Amino acid sequence: AIVESLLKFKSDAALLSGKRVVITAGPTREAIDPVRYLTNHSSGKMGYALADQAARMGADVTLISGPVTLPTPTNVTRINVTSAREMAQAAEKSALRADLFIGAAAVADYHVANAETQKHKKQSGQTGWTLQLAENPDIIARIARHEQRPGIVVGFAAETADVVHYAQDKLQRKNLDWIVANDVSRSDIGFNSDDNQVVVFGRDGQQFDLPQQSKSQLAGALLALFMKD
Amino acid sequence: AIVESLLKFKSDAALLSGKRVVITAGPTREAIDPVRYLTNHSSGKMGYALADQAARMGADVTLISGPVTLPTPTNVTRINVTSAREMAQAAEKSALRADLFIGAAAVADYHVANAETQKHKKQSGQTGWTLQLAENPDIIARIARHEQRPGIVVGFAAETADVVHYAQDKLQRKNLDWIVANDVSRSDIGFNSDDNQVVVFGRDGQQFDLPQQSKSQLAGALLALFMKD
Repeated sequence: AIVESLLKFKSDAALLSGKRVVITAGPTREAIDPVRYLTNHSSGKMGYALADQAARMGADVTLISGPVTLPTPTNVTRINVTSAREMAQAAEKSALRADLFIGAAAVADYHVANAETQKHKKQSGQTGWTLQLAENPDIIARIARHEQRPGIVVGFAAETADVVHYAQDKLQRKNLDWIVANDVSRSDIGFNSDDNQVVVFGRDGQQFDLPQQSKSQLAGALLALFMKD
Repeated sequence: AIVESLLKFKSDAALLSGKRVVITAGPTREAIDPVRYLTNHSSGKMGYALADQAARMGADVTLISGPVTLPTPTNVTRINVTSAREMAQAAEKSALRADLFIGAAAVADYHVANAETQKHKKQSGQTGWTLQLAENPDIIARIARHEQRPGIVVGFAAETADVVHYAQDKLQRKNLDWIVANDVSRSDIGFNSDDNQVVVFGRDGQQFDLPQQSKSQLAGALLALFMKD
């Protein structure tokens, strides 16, 4: 019943009228050298669907996007970034004092501390290679703890095990209002799929199970949920 | 003058009639855990253009492709793979005794020796992470030294410095007939560009400079060159 009533909000074209919404989407890439990099599985589809729906609902939308092959949704301002550190800068520039910030990007938690400026060449006799990874800034935690914090801050948790546990921990630890959790060990939803199925947890202990549906439909339901108060 | 005469071969629609051609294209992905991976910059456009042109010239074409967003060219048999080790298996299955093998894929030289089956979680107090990389099979060297070696074996060298030196070294060391070298430190050609500019070296010391042109045009010129004897 809760899910159905949320879906009904989708017809409210003016729900986000006058609101400033900032969304991150896609993966980040962390250079190893000029030809190699670390990244995460992410098509960007969920974040782009959220940006598209938010614009349709009347919001002023900024989409901070890692490298994806998706077209920019109509009436959305897109900022392209590559690394997590670039995404962090763009987010701190755009998201402060926004009405709604959604961190839908699959941000790399680490960059390569011993990255090389020329293509790495194997040394004589060497058979392996050791990459030292160092932590990236925690974009969403920084935004959510900032003194100019956006009105509502929403995170995503893509997990392969103990989904509920990790999502609720992240919600609390990063001072979020909502967290959208999905189980990416399933191949029929998430990542490059056009569908998704998620569980949403709120800071007041609420839990909403949203059944499998297109990412576009889901985006409408999620935005209605985040703005319901 | 050499370049112009090569380009003329493009109109020869039957140049590869009855020939079996196997091409690898795109990047490979090496899992770190279910959500993170190592990869190389590669759109797959050059390998796909070669497969398309080879089919137009009458060849029986097998395209072994890493993850890309390109459509399969008409009359081309496409085999999808993810990791370098999967690509090596597919290549050894398809390429032996072929008339022409072209290794256009950006194969990862390393996989992650300490890959994890569940999403990696930071341990308490831990701020970094060390990835141990181990060498992948050298696909093109294995194919080119096999007792059922294809008639002609062609490699690619994407370099950021000392392009000519590394390309000629690779040609000799891996027992190739031709190597196609490009300087990927330039942003106007290579990687995700629709154009490319390359230098081709032959095992007999020949060198051909092919000027900047579309990857489709370049594919025709390259196939004419490889089959010229």
